[in-house]
Amino acid sequence: MVTLLRVPSISTLPEHKNDIGICAQLCKELLKRSGCDRVEIFNTEGNPVVFGEKLTDPAKPTVLVYGHYDVQPVDPLDAWETKPFQPVIKNGKIFARGASDDKGQLMIQLKAFEILVQTNTTQNNIKFMIEGEEEIGSPNLNKFIKDHRKMLKADLVLISDSSMLSRTMPSLEISFRGSCAMEIEVTGPDRDLHSGIYGGAVANPIIVLSQMLASLHKSDNSIAVPGFYDNVLDISSKEKLDWRDAPFDEDSFKKQIGVIELWGEKEYSPQDRIGIRPAIDVNGIWGGYLRSGMKSIIPCKAHAKISSRIVPNQLSSDILQKIADFLRSKAPGQVKVHMQSFPGGEPYRIDTNSPFFRAAAKAIESTYGKPPVLVHDGGTLPICYLMEKELGIKSVLLGFGLPDDNLHSPNEKFDLNQFFKGILTILNFHGNLSENVIDKR
Amino acid sequence: MVTLLRVPSISTLPEHKNDIGICAQLCKELLKRSGCDRVEIFNTEGNPVVFGEKLTDPAKPTVLVYGHYDVQPVDPLDAWETKPFQPVIKNGKIFARGASDDKGQLMIQLKAFEILVQTNTTQNNIKFMIEGEEEIGSPNLNKFIKDHRKMLKADLVLISDSSMLSRTMPSLEISFRGSCAMEIEVTGPDRDLHSGIYGGAVANPIIVLSQMLASLHKSDNSIAVPGFYDNVLDISSKEKLDWRDAPFDEDSFKKQIGVIELWGEKEYSPQDRIGIRPAIDVNGIWGGYLRSGMKSIIPCKAHAKISSRIVPNQLSSDILQKIADFLRSKAPGQVKVHMQSFPGGEPYRIDTNSPFFRAAAKAIESTYGKPPVLVHDGGTLPICYLMEKELGIKSVLLGFGLPDDNLHSPNEKFDLNQFFKGILTILNFHGNLSENVIDKR
Repeated sequence: MVTLLRVPSISTLPEHKNDIGICAQLCKELLKRSGCDRVEIFNTEGNPVVFGEKLTDPAKPTVLVYGHYDVQPVDPLDAWETKPFQPVIKNGKIFARGASDDKGQLMIQLKAFEILVQTNTTQNNIKFMIEGEEEIGSPNLNKFIKDHRKMLKADLVLISDSSMLSRTMPSLEISFRGSCAMEIEVTGPDRDLHSGIYGGAVANPIIVLSQMLASLHKSDNSIAVPGFYDNVLDISSKEKLDWRDAPFDEDSFKKQIGVIELWGEKEYSPQDRIGIRPAIDVNGIWGGYLRSGMKSIIPCKAHAKISSRIVPNQLSSDILQKIADFLRSKAPGQVKVHMQSFPGGEPYRIDTNSPFFRAAAKAIESTYGKPPVLVHDGGTLPICYLMEKELGIKSVLLGFGLPDDNLHSPNEKFDLNQFFKGILTILNFHGNLSENVIDKR
Repeated sequence: MVTLLRVPSISTLPEHKNDIGICAQLCKELLKRSGCDRVEIFNTEGNPVVFGEKLTDPAKPTVLVYGHYDVQPVDPLDAWETKPFQPVIKNGKIFARGASDDKGQLMIQLKAFEILVQTNTTQNNIKFMIEGEEEIGSPNLNKFIKDHRKMLKADLVLISDSSMLSRTMPSLEISFRGSCAMEIEVTGPDRDLHSGIYGGAVANPIIVLSQMLASLHKSDNSIAVPGFYDNVLDISSKEKLDWRDAPFDEDSFKKQIGVIELWGEKEYSPQDRIGIRPAIDVNGIWGGYLRSGMKSIIPCKAHAKISSRIVPNQLSSDILQKIADFLRSKAPGQVKVHMQSFPGGEPYRIDTNSPFFRAAAKAIESTYGKPPVLVHDGGTLPICYLMEKELGIKSVLLGFGLPDDNLHSPNEKFDLNQFFKGILTILNFHGNLSENVIDKR
């Protein structure tokens, strides 16, 4: 795990292209060492996909394990207590970018597989698909899946890239939000202007951009984009109940992230807002003079990065179009607006009636001593939707992260207790799976 | 002039503190070489003030020439065609940061003075006060003036730090706008958060800041801050007429700055908006992820630099307070807001009935062959208000910049034709002044 965590495989930054290649190579070696009969790196138009497989018995189910070796950027670097790519173990936790998302959790799958191989107990057929573009919305994965339908054929996709409610409150995801993002550039004058000479007669791109962004939400914190909520699925009352039953301590939630008060759509609970309701965030903004002191200018440009988390049955392309149209309608004629979309990941609902889901729930119960709470996860896993759309294969999530893992934040970490319980749970799952599936066939 | 332009004396950036010292020393040497009997550098709590004088005849008027040796930052550096601190002459214009604002115009005063001394024709008493903090609002100048009342005693302040309408349309300023600025920081969670896990339940500081900034203007582009316009002086109809008579070609104005359409308060002309009406601009904004690609976060902080140009009889401290109170009232309870004010400069009206003003108008007419058009200047010169408040001395402005000098912008330049005409005009002014003033005494 440590070797993997040392590679700064940040997919969104072009200057880390080489590290991406190094990390893919490392994954290939790890798959081989763990016991795959076949391993191969596939180049795509973006970052490579690493594939591995060990086929044992055609009569047994085939599990396609999915993981990703790319990570989020590390900014702000000065907020890290230890260096993001020099893993350190403190108090039973390993600190590094990617420790929980997803290198550490990928290692759970590899270690469980290695144990099965070493002990000659691999009953199921196992395939691995490890991609390097999850953190940028998996833009080339759809084509890769289409081009390798036969190779990727499986009975289910198994993913460890999510979190549990707590160490003592095991949970299983029953839905994921999707995501889509865009960058927007507002241009006013052709250069930064003296704010004394021109101030009052020239549209200020920062003010215009602020007005555009401010228009995204209504005063009740719901989203003002026309048609935005059109396809939002009303989660069934049974599922809603399960979700609401999951304990939620608002005070500790607030304390964990250092906020005075929570925010959001007034008629929904905080849990609903991050689980079953869509959201729009601005992830970055910049324009004009950014250094110390002041500079009396009307800047020529202002930029923002905007993203939306979407829920079943919203579609990323539709939502991006609606947001873009709305923002454009808010820009006055005095400025030029340029928008660039980033690839989106679709939302996903887990089939809770499938034998695979039951095998997962049972595996957790065996390891943790209690059945999992069912939760709606606010994060995004583009792979689930893609595999179902292209190959008709459903996904099961067995995630072992914890809420304070600092995913995408400084000081990302992974609890080693969860790491070892994770390996045990995956071993249990493989055992349950062959029984369950045989029952159902 | 070239030696002065080579020094990157950027007052707002602490890393240029040493250059400020070098530049002050250079000003001292230039004053001595031009013919001052006494020259001295005065340290302040900020940047030094350089003083020089040559007292000829106690019966003649004393002119205090004001200028500044500090300059604006150069960002964005890649928009400069030549290096900002390596002056280059092209097509009769000198290109460098400070070429027009104010080193080049300060040199007009020094050269005219040198000629008077060399030709033994200095009739008036001449003092120089050259400061190094004009571009940051002259925060230490008030104290300096208070502490050196006797030394600075004069009949008028003469300043070359402004522009004419065009090469062939000489003009004289009859009012200046003031300015004030603040920096605002909005803090949400204690670190950047994963936008999937938290998006929808946590207030996004960039969105909050955008909403605050968007609230500054009403839909008719007037300023929404309560009481903002309370003390705005209604410029007299005579002055309004003079101002409106000044030719204004909207198409060439738009072309000059590369905008599609002008913007601003609907019931005022573009000229009024930049001359006699106050304005609020956002000069810089930043927060969250600023690099390439995307990062799925709710950022913990967002920042903006805001400034306002104010007009007679608004007061910078009052306006800053009103803006701050208003912005605070727009911030929801979920975030913390921190504000920091920058020193302001007050607006100023020139006394058009004074003999000094008439001497200036006559000097322009002698050089340019036509009387100057009277204009309301949108820029700020904190010195004028300070000298009148502290010593009761009025200012006269003889500025030789041109509208396309790119003040505060990349590729700042100064027309050498204006430079030489400027020297001639100042020589004429000194001649007219002694006559005029004697007439009036």
